[in-house]
Amino acid sequence: MATSTFVATELAPYRERLRRAQEELDRQAIDLLLVGPSPDLRYLTGYDAHTSERLSMLVLPRTGTPAYVVPALEAPQLGDRRDLLELHAWRETEAPAAIVAEVAGTSGGRTVAVSDQLWSVFLLRLQETMPGNDWRSGSEVMRALRMCKDDREVDLMRDAAHRTDAAWEEFATQPLAGQTETEAMRRLQALTEKRGLRAAFGICASGPNSASPHHHTGDRVIQQGDAVVFDWGGTLEGYHSDVTRTVHVGEPSEEFRRVYEIVLAANQAALEAVRPGVPCEEIDRVARSLIAAEGYGDAFLHRVGHGLGLDVHEEPYLVAGNHLPLAAGMVVSDEPGIYLEGRFGIRIEDAVVCLEAGGERLNEANRDLTIVD
Amino acid sequence: MATSTFVATELAPYRERLRRAQEELDRQAIDLLLVGPSPDLRYLTGYDAHTSERLSMLVLPRTGTPAYVVPALEAPQLGDRRDLLELHAWRETEAPAAIVAEVAGTSGGRTVAVSDQLWSVFLLRLQETMPGNDWRSGSEVMRALRMCKDDREVDLMRDAAHRTDAAWEEFATQPLAGQTETEAMRRLQALTEKRGLRAAFGICASGPNSASPHHHTGDRVIQQGDAVVFDWGGTLEGYHSDVTRTVHVGEPSEEFRRVYEIVLAANQAALEAVRPGVPCEEIDRVARSLIAAEGYGDAFLHRVGHGLGLDVHEEPYLVAGNHLPLAAGMVVSDEPGIYLEGRFGIRIEDAVVCLEAGGERLNEANRDLTIVD
Repeated sequence: MATSTFVATELAPYRERLRRAQEELDRQAIDLLLVGPSPDLRYLTGYDAHTSERLSMLVLPRTGTPAYVVPALEAPQLGDRRDLLELHAWRETEAPAAIVAEVAGTSGGRTVAVSDQLWSVFLLRLQETMPGNDWRSGSEVMRALRMCKDDREVDLMRDAAHRTDAAWEEFATQPLAGQTETEAMRRLQALTEKRGLRAAFGICASGPNSASPHHHTGDRVIQQGDAVVFDWGGTLEGYHSDVTRTVHVGEPSEEFRRVYEIVLAANQAALEAVRPGVPCEEIDRVARSLIAAEGYGDAFLHRVGHGLGLDVHEEPYLVAGNHLPLAAGMVVSDEPGIYLEGRFGIRIEDAVVCLEAGGERLNEANRDLTIVD
Repeated sequence: MATSTFVATELAPYRERLRRAQEELDRQAIDLLLVGPSPDLRYLTGYDAHTSERLSMLVLPRTGTPAYVVPALEAPQLGDRRDLLELHAWRETEAPAAIVAEVAGTSGGRTVAVSDQLWSVFLLRLQETMPGNDWRSGSEVMRALRMCKDDREVDLMRDAAHRTDAAWEEFATQPLAGQTETEAMRRLQALTEKRGLRAAFGICASGPNSASPHHHTGDRVIQQGDAVVFDWGGTLEGYHSDVTRTVHVGEPSEEFRRVYEIVLAANQAALEAVRPGVPCEEIDRVARSLIAAEGYGDAFLHRVGHGLGLDVHEEPYLVAGNHLPLAAGMVVSDEPGIYLEGRFGIRIEDAVVCLEAGGERLNEANRDLTIVD
């Protein structure tokens, strides 16, 4: 058995979001949106369903009543969602894809969008049960709703960021040498949870490991002379924080200091480039050209940032080729890095909200070069 | 950023599993198997990739060399997997679905299986990039490999079960009244982690909540007179434990004692029905008919069990309608329950391995009615 969570809040905002989703379906000429357990579902209904082999799905037609097909076992958790959604509970011996088809109608020739994170096994079953339709990713619909955060969402994310910063300020005063990466990250996550967040992810990459941007936190013992990258975050009502700080254990080399200043300048330049109307790729270009001008272009291995919200990575992505203009309410990570294989890596990351006046950092944890024991 | 783990072990068993998967593709006349981050991937390659918006995928043709399409950022984590898989790393500005198509070949008219947990957004992109193929669930291939555990897997799962039992034995000696469900479950998970497992999931359902099989552990304070269901598990090298025990706080009613004995008898009867050749649904029927004969048939709300392994729920499912015969090496949960709405619920669950001689419980934590303070 596994569990699902029900977020008890007022239904009105979800009714409004479902209505806006239907408007968007209409605008994009999509007949039906099918949403499985995912941040998309949580956004639209407040229901934080667990993903499992039992099909659990919002069935949202372009017009008419939103429905929810739910395993009977899970139905009690939908509670007062009955006022929002027409519930169709299925029992263990029933075929849920057939119930979705019945609820959604079986006529072909329609355009059906499905949530990105829906397991393929369900999509394949639905494609078979509802033949003759045109299937597409639901992200065009969902991103139109989710990319720009409203004031309440921005407030939540600012709160989550500040709590994460507070955990860092306590953590960064303590020595690191002699601990394993896993121990250090566990301590930082505990400090983050102490401030009311649910730990979501964490990378601690020390010494040469810091040069691998997606290093898996392991048993390496942190030692004198190490650069140590901490990239972690938690959730508050599902909304993520995501911050990276790089410290040095003992006195750093001149090169480390120089590279640190370059990454910090790139982080600042990207922040300053954020404002409504600027294409996403421009933020990446600004940080990248600054780093390239200093001779480290090949060592900046990844895009400069990603959208942040109910998903830790979501649209918009700040990457070359993404011409989408930024808009007020978008929250993105600003995380340039320089990675020198076998030696050290430095990444400095803040969450940034795009406001009418420009970018505002949600994170304010100290960004100055920090030397620890 | 988020992370992926690399499980460093010998490559030989994975080479053998990939070979067997290709044999199975041949047997089922499937041309290609595409596997995203999932227990399927971990089973076949030992690579425990993180699921994200960046496509990361095993491309396994019916014959020839297995390939892996990986975000360049993640490539270092594949380490010596280069000897097992032909790596194709893609950079941030490339289109990974096109790379999969290039690696797999773009000719149509083929049968392509995809792993069940692959996100739909990737399947839709692949269907578009590789048109004219017949797409199907990879579960027919994967279950042929994964359902029957080999000796090493059974040993790991027995070890995981025993560690979980040991956590329970320590936990069940301590009082519960006055703690919230969340506090109690956190304590039980900490005891489980202390024994070397990674906590995977946990339900604590107290008082009337115990009558909801998928209750979300919450802030209810456990009190005198409560039935309390604990359903939790952890992983050892990715393999799950999954056990449920129900205790009573203070002296239980006669009815509670009677229902407890019925559930225990159903758990025992299901165990005794396990042997190679018996259809999966028969195990469910045995437990259900025993419970029905005692007048509680409508209160047994779910199937009697599910397969257990790298997934916490996997094939085979012990449910009416599943005619698949059990076979030696299958590991399933045996978890009958009776749920009396608004009053109490009781579930008793063990992991059971099907051996030639019959079922063997992997869990041995005390199943006698336990009364706690």
